Amino acid sequence: MSDVRTATTATNLEADETHRLISSEKVDGTAVYDRRGERLGTLHHVMIDKYTGQVSYAVMSFGGFLGMGESYHPLPWKVLTYDTRLGGYVVDHLDRNRLEGAPSYTSRDVPNWDDRSYTGRIDRYWMPPV
Amino acid sequence: MSDVRTATTATNLEADETHRLISSEKVDGTAVYDRRGERLGTLHHVMIDKYTGQVSYAVMSFGGFLGMGESYHPLPWKVLTYDTRLGGYVVDHLDRNRLEGAPSYTSRDVPNWDDRSYTGRIDRYWMPPV
Repeated sequence: MSDVRTATTATNLEADETHRLISSEKVDGTAVYDRRGERLGTLHHVMIDKYTGQVSYAVMSFGGFLGMGESYHPLPWKVLTYDTRLGGYVVDHLDRNRLEGAPSYTSRDVPNWDDRSYTGRIDRYWMPPV
Repeated sequence: MSDVRTATTATNLEADETHRLISSEKVDGTAVYDRRGERLGTLHHVMIDKYTGQVSYAVMSFGGFLGMGESYHPLPWKVLTYDTRLGGYVVDHLDRNRLEGAPSYTSRDVPNWDDRSYTGRIDRYWMPPV
């Protein structure tokens, strides 16, 4: 198969603007980086507000990363920034230490997303009031 | 197993407000109705803007519904309204006739979502300029 690529300079810029849409079936697996560009995990799934269609939380998986099997860390969508160059999300205040204290769960204790005290805890951890 | 349900009247009202979040893994299968409450299909997946986290398009599947095997109909998110009573989405101007002329695809001709002329065609069909 031939892999035709032409006018790369112009189309790369265009691509940055047009490759905006991703299927809910494929959002799983998008990489998550800290500010220094270190890959810390991947996006496992997102929680969508079914009324507004706005993603509220991104749930990241850090398989074995913290030495405790696969764990899931929910983050407010607002703290994620999509980085076109990295092809993934960057979270400014994300590092291993910060993760260790963050709300997380495993497949054995999936949270109740309707519990506002739970989502409030996520929000306060990642977006503390100033 | 015992299925404990208490204080239903109060909690049903609360549920309307709090059951807002749905996982991208489970959005698949949500029912889609016309204005008269007739179930026309189900939500197959959604297309998410990876920068803003806003769902742009909902792709519905109408398996065998129009007598042509499983087909996928993308609709702008804006034309969907979540109906708590029905537990699914209502689309005002959706009916069988309207669907037949709408942009659709099958698993053999999946669209290029980066092609703005394609998304523009969906937008114009479902949200014609006044």
